[in-house]
Amino acid sequence: MTADQPTLENVRQARDRLAWVARHTPLDYSTTFSNMTGNSVYLKLENMQKTGSFKIRGAYNKVMSLSERERTRGVIAASAGNHAQGVAYAASRAGTGCTIVMPNGAPLSKLMATQGYGAEVLLAGSGYDEAYQVACALQQKSGATFIHSFNDPHVIAGQGTIALELLDDLPDIEAVLVPVGGGGLLAGISLVLKEIKPAVRVIGVQAQGAPAMYSSYRQGCLNEIKGTGTIADGIAVGKPGEATFALLCKYVDDIVTVDDEEIAGAILMLLERAKIVVEGAGAVGLAALTYHKTALNNTKVAVVLSGGNIDVHILSIIIERGLAKSGRYVRLSTVVTDRPGSLSKLLFTVAEAGANVISVAHDRIKQDIPLKQAEVELALETRNKAHIDQIIDILCSNGYCPEVTS
Amino acid sequence: MTADQPTLENVRQARDRLAWVARHTPLDYSTTFSNMTGNSVYLKLENMQKTGSFKIRGAYNKVMSLSERERTRGVIAASAGNHAQGVAYAASRAGTGCTIVMPNGAPLSKLMATQGYGAEVLLAGSGYDEAYQVACALQQKSGATFIHSFNDPHVIAGQGTIALELLDDLPDIEAVLVPVGGGGLLAGISLVLKEIKPAVRVIGVQAQGAPAMYSSYRQGCLNEIKGTGTIADGIAVGKPGEATFALLCKYVDDIVTVDDEEIAGAILMLLERAKIVVEGAGAVGLAALTYHKTALNNTKVAVVLSGGNIDVHILSIIIERGLAKSGRYVRLSTVVTDRPGSLSKLLFTVAEAGANVISVAHDRIKQDIPLKQAEVELALETRNKAHIDQIIDILCSNGYCPEVTS
Repeated sequence: MTADQPTLENVRQARDRLAWVARHTPLDYSTTFSNMTGNSVYLKLENMQKTGSFKIRGAYNKVMSLSERERTRGVIAASAGNHAQGVAYAASRAGTGCTIVMPNGAPLSKLMATQGYGAEVLLAGSGYDEAYQVACALQQKSGATFIHSFNDPHVIAGQGTIALELLDDLPDIEAVLVPVGGGGLLAGISLVLKEIKPAVRVIGVQAQGAPAMYSSYRQGCLNEIKGTGTIADGIAVGKPGEATFALLCKYVDDIVTVDDEEIAGAILMLLERAKIVVEGAGAVGLAALTYHKTALNNTKVAVVLSGGNIDVHILSIIIERGLAKSGRYVRLSTVVTDRPGSLSKLLFTVAEAGANVISVAHDRIKQDIPLKQAEVELALETRNKAHIDQIIDILCSNGYCPEVTS
Repeated sequence: MTADQPTLENVRQARDRLAWVARHTPLDYSTTFSNMTGNSVYLKLENMQKTGSFKIRGAYNKVMSLSERERTRGVIAASAGNHAQGVAYAASRAGTGCTIVMPNGAPLSKLMATQGYGAEVLLAGSGYDEAYQVACALQQKSGATFIHSFNDPHVIAGQGTIALELLDDLPDIEAVLVPVGGGGLLAGISLVLKEIKPAVRVIGVQAQGAPAMYSSYRQGCLNEIKGTGTIADGIAVGKPGEATFALLCKYVDDIVTVDDEEIAGAILMLLERAKIVVEGAGAVGLAALTYHKTALNNTKVAVVLSGGNIDVHILSIIIERGLAKSGRYVRLSTVVTDRPGSLSKLLFTVAEAGANVISVAHDRIKQDIPLKQAEVELALETRNKAHIDQIIDILCSNGYCPEVTS
C-alpha cells in the first residue's frame, strides 16, 4: 500500500476521532425488503447521520488530521450538496474557519443549512466545475486547506468507519451494497471489510446515467465519463479518484448499475414501506437488490442508505414517477364532445373501472382538437399495470380513445 | 377500576403476547428538535411499527384474548386506515379469519395493504359511518367478533405496551406527548406511566379540526363533536370512547390542540430534518412541542410518532403547504404585456431578488386580463417570509403588481 492510501489502523483512528461528533447510525432489519428479495436485509441509516449524510465522517476526520497551523488557515471546499454540509459541520466542530463555494442557483435549503453550520458560503459560477475553479483560486490566495470530497486518504478512512459499525452490529454480515460516485465511501467500507472479514461480499452500485467508476472498474483503467445525468445527483461524478479506484480494484467484488426509474422506485419503497426519506444516491443499493442486479440470495446483506438530503420539491416528482412506473398512477388524455354532461359521463366510466381520480384538466383551445370537442387529461390512482390496461379497454369500448400521457 | 377497564397487569400480559409479533420500535434522540425546543427530545418511532402504525399492538392483543370458539368465527372491523391494517395483520398472525369493511373510494394503497395481510375487504358505503353500519349488520349475521379501534380494554392494554418500552429505553423519562383521537393510545400510555412513575407528565395532543376528546376532557363530560376536518385523519374521531375518556380523566395531565398548518409544519420538519415519514396524526406531538403548545422546558420528553401511513399524493400537497407557511415557497401572479421579452424581463427581476423559479404558468385567455396582456403565475423557492416581502417590493418598484396566490 502506498503512503497516500489509508490503512485499517487509519480507520480505527478515525472512529476514535468521530466518537462524539458523528452518530453511530442504526442498522435496521427490514421484514418487507427481506421478504421481497429472499435475503435478510438490514438498512444502514446514514440518512439519519448528522447533516443528513455520511459525508461528515470523512470531512471531520480530514479536518482533525490537519496541523494546528493548517487549522488556523481554515478549510475550503466546492460543493452544492452533502459534502458542503459535511465540511461545514466538521469545521465548526473542530473550531476551524470554513469557506464553501457553491454554484449559483444551488438549492436554498442546502445553502442555508451550510451557513447554519457556520460556514462562509460564496455563490460563484453556473455549475460545479466553475465553482470548483473559484474555490481553487481562493485557496491559492488564502492558503486554506482544500478538502476533496473523496480522493483523500483521511476522507476515505472516515467513511470506512461505517464498516466498523456494521461489524459491531451484525457480526455475521455476509454482503454489503454501497453507493458509488467518486468511490470514497465504497473504498473505505471495502478496505475495512476485506481486511477484517474477507468473506463478506462487497458490491458497489452506481447510477446508469453517471457510470464512470463502473466503467473504469470493468475496464481496469480509470475513465472519465460525462454521463447523461441522474436523479442520484450525489453520486454523479464524471471523474473518479485515483486513490479510490486503486482501493476498489483491490477490494471490491463487483460494481453494478441501476437506472433512474429503479432509483425512483427504491426511494418510493423506502418512503412508503420503511417510512424513511432517502435521496437518490442513497437509494441505489436497495434499487440494485429489489431490481435483481445482484445474485444475492438467502444472504445477510447490509444496504448502506448513504444520505437523505433530497429536495422536497424533487421528492414530489419522484413520488409521481415511482407510482407511474409501478402502475399505481397514470395520466390519460382523451377527447370528449364539448357539451354539458360529457365530462361527467367520462368520470362515471372511470369510476366504474375502479380508478380514483386525482386531478382533471379540461382544455378546449388546444390547436389539434376539432372544434366543439375538448381534451380531458385525467390523473388516476390505479392498482397496477393490469388495472391500467383494463381501464383503457373499458374506455375504448365506451367510445373513447384514451392515450397515456405519462 | 371497573371490570371493563384495563390494568397495568393487562398491559404486561399484552407485552408478552406481542413479543414476536409487534416490533419494539426505536426511541431516537433528536439533536435538531432538542436544540429547537430547549428540551431533550426523543422520538418514539411507531411509524416504523409493523403495518406502519401502533394499531397492531391493540388489535393483536384483542384477537389473542378471544376464546378458541370466538376465534373460529373470525373478526370484523370497519376502517379505511391504520386500524384496518392492524386488525388484518393481527388476525393473519393469529390464524383467524378477518373481514374489513372500508368505505368506497378508500385509498387503493390501504386497500391493497389490508388485502395483502390476508383480510377479506368489502367496499361499502360512502364514508366511515356507512361502512360501520354495514360491518355491524354483517357481524350480526356471521357472529364474528367486532374489533373496536379504541373503546376496548384489550385494545387499550395493547397500546399501553408502548409506555413499557419507553420506560425500558429512557428510565429517567420526564414527559410524553401522545396523539389523541378516540383516546386508546393515550389511555394505555397514561395508565402505565402514572401507575409506575407518576411524576412523568403525560400530555395528549389533538387536532383543532377534530377536538372531541380535548373538549370533553376540558369540560369533564363526554362530548360528541363533528369537527371541521383535519389532515390528521387518523385521529379525526367525532365520538370519543367512554372507557378511554374515564382513563384520560384519571391519568392525563393535559390535552392541547394543534391546527393543520402546524401539523403540516411538523410533518415537513420530520421529513426534512429527521428523514422520516410520519402521517398527520403521528405528527401532532411534535407540532405541539415546536409550536409551543406546552410549557415543557429543559425536560426529557418522548414524542410518540404514532404512524407513518400517509398517502404519498397528500404528502406532496403537505410539502407545499409546509414550505409556504415557513416562507420557503410562494406563488405570485402578476400581469405582463403580451410581447416577446416581457416574461424574460420578469424572470430576470425575480432572479436578481434571489428567488429560484420552480414553475411558470403563462395565461392570456383569462377573462379579467386586458387584451394584449397576459397573466403569469410563478412558483418560487424563497428563504423566508422577509425574503418574500423583499421580492414583492422589488417587483413593485419595477412596475409589476404581484399578488400572492397561495
